[in-house]
Amino acid sequence: MATAKAHTNIALVKYWGKKDQDLIIPQTDSLSMTLDEFYTTTRVVFDPALTAEQITVNDQPVTGKGAERITKFLDIVRQMSGRQDFARVDSHNHVPTAAGLASSASAFAALAGAASRASGLQLSRRDLSRLARRGSGSATRSIYGGLVEWHRGHDDATSYAEPIMEKLDFGLEMLAIMINTGRKKISSRHGMQSSVITSPYYASWKEVVANDMETMKAAIQAKDIPAIGHIAEENALRMHALTLSADPGYTYFNNETLTAIQAVRQLRDQGINCYFTMDAGPNVKVIYDRRDRERIVDGLAQTFAPERLVVSPAGPGIEIWDENNRLIIGGQLNFDY
Amino acid sequence: MATAKAHTNIALVKYWGKKDQDLIIPQTDSLSMTLDEFYTTTRVVFDPALTAEQITVNDQPVTGKGAERITKFLDIVRQMSGRQDFARVDSHNHVPTAAGLASSASAFAALAGAASRASGLQLSRRDLSRLARRGSGSATRSIYGGLVEWHRGHDDATSYAEPIMEKLDFGLEMLAIMINTGRKKISSRHGMQSSVITSPYYASWKEVVANDMETMKAAIQAKDIPAIGHIAEENALRMHALTLSADPGYTYFNNETLTAIQAVRQLRDQGINCYFTMDAGPNVKVIYDRRDRERIVDGLAQTFAPERLVVSPAGPGIEIWDENNRLIIGGQLNFDY
Repeated sequence: MATAKAHTNIALVKYWGKKDQDLIIPQTDSLSMTLDEFYTTTRVVFDPALTAEQITVNDQPVTGKGAERITKFLDIVRQMSGRQDFARVDSHNHVPTAAGLASSASAFAALAGAASRASGLQLSRRDLSRLARRGSGSATRSIYGGLVEWHRGHDDATSYAEPIMEKLDFGLEMLAIMINTGRKKISSRHGMQSSVITSPYYASWKEVVANDMETMKAAIQAKDIPAIGHIAEENALRMHALTLSADPGYTYFNNETLTAIQAVRQLRDQGINCYFTMDAGPNVKVIYDRRDRERIVDGLAQTFAPERLVVSPAGPGIEIWDENNRLIIGGQLNFDY
Repeated sequence: MATAKAHTNIALVKYWGKKDQDLIIPQTDSLSMTLDEFYTTTRVVFDPALTAEQITVNDQPVTGKGAERITKFLDIVRQMSGRQDFARVDSHNHVPTAAGLASSASAFAALAGAASRASGLQLSRRDLSRLARRGSGSATRSIYGGLVEWHRGHDDATSYAEPIMEKLDFGLEMLAIMINTGRKKISSRHGMQSSVITSPYYASWKEVVANDMETMKAAIQAKDIPAIGHIAEENALRMHALTLSADPGYTYFNNETLTAIQAVRQLRDQGINCYFTMDAGPNVKVIYDRRDRERIVDGLAQTFAPERLVVSPAGPGIEIWDENNRLIIGGQLNFDY
């Protein structure tokens, strides 16, 4: 038995498109910040007494496609460990309801940590990152805390994440504006594939990312939050331009997304350095220096109810506990990558 | 003295970016439909008794930047004709108030027609098209009726419009959904220049247009309205992806634009062939076969008040009357290009 806790992450330079659908090798590098406020805790037991996988998320049994995806992932762990048993998986998402932030990133990172350890594997964080990647691309980065780079690589061995700055020594912070979507969204998996295949701008996007990775890393080293925010905002808009230019074209923006973008830009026009980013959904995340937090929250609260504004500093990397609740990865422990 | 009437046009393959700012030579070809419902009527008199230009639009005096732009245009006409006098210009826009469709296209086409004739020039329609281009790029196409192609050319002589099908012999029709914008918009002049300079996707956009011009002309020859609509919709979204990917990124969409797009797509999901296009503003224009008009109007009226839905068939090319109110260009008259 093992338990793992992993945080979700928000990309500052986006991952949008796979080169290999099965191994989840991305078309580009990407770079994210792990968020303290949003995480998943997952416990896994491989049990010879089980006659089928038993999976719950937030204490509700999971069946159908959701269960299939988890079983497919556990098959990889079984193959790696030689373990033959079915598993019991109990997972809790610590994400505000309807936030649209319950991404698969924290879920598959936590599952990778708990399942690998429960199966008897003792993986390095780099190998955990590679394993998490098989479940969901963005989970690759959720193994690490702080600011994280995912090297696209060219195969299973070379495509993994690495920390750029695990413990932030400057005031970079994010705020999620919770926006509900009434409509069924296009999954990021489907959306990015459509962009790769049908957007005439996809080849240029790869150059955009290559350039943004360089300037973003330089901005991080310089602790230059306005530069980080500006690059992240442009990068996000250029990703969303891929969805608009796909065939059929579509957008993850809804009415409130536009309102949120406008609110952030109005604050910026007032001289407050804040920037936005968006992923495959209508939520808007604001990037800023924690010194400006109060003014930004006050400003946004003129448009959005305060309970819809969730502040998050950078969060830690994965933590894994063994069957005796002994922390074996994460926290204050040292480890090699 | 001369009077001219010119209709506005909506591009099915968009013009978005200049190669030459002064001569208004575009980066790409473009293709539009002239609309019967929206037009400008302009009377011009060159009068030696005048000591300054006198300009009214909808009976209101025009001064400042608006007047400067018209005077600059009249200077071109004076240079061509040798005329030295100031002009009196009286213009009426027949466009629903706040429609955002009072584009400079019909305005500068009508001004080109009236001013050139009033100055004594007798220009062919091709030369009128070249002259109108100097006032506003899209005015180049408003000299002609029906479906019109603007050849980008490479200089003043080679950049002009030409009709593809002056009198439509199939049911292509448009409907404008009138959407107000409370915010100051980014002018198309400024917006397109920003896209040319800062969008990483601009080079690919030029290839998109080259391809769309071919497929659109083939679809027109085949009278294939679903194909025309599909190409136009994709082309518009790919143009708007340029604004999103510019630095700073921006959008002409507002909340109601998204609602209108959704309404059109819902109708399409119900099996009605309708498509949308948008220009440098929040209004949405719907493209369809006039046989489906009633179902489309009924469907959209569930979301938008009926007075905000303006149906327009294709409109005629420019008409010019001389000082005796004798029609000298347009209507049933023949002319060479």
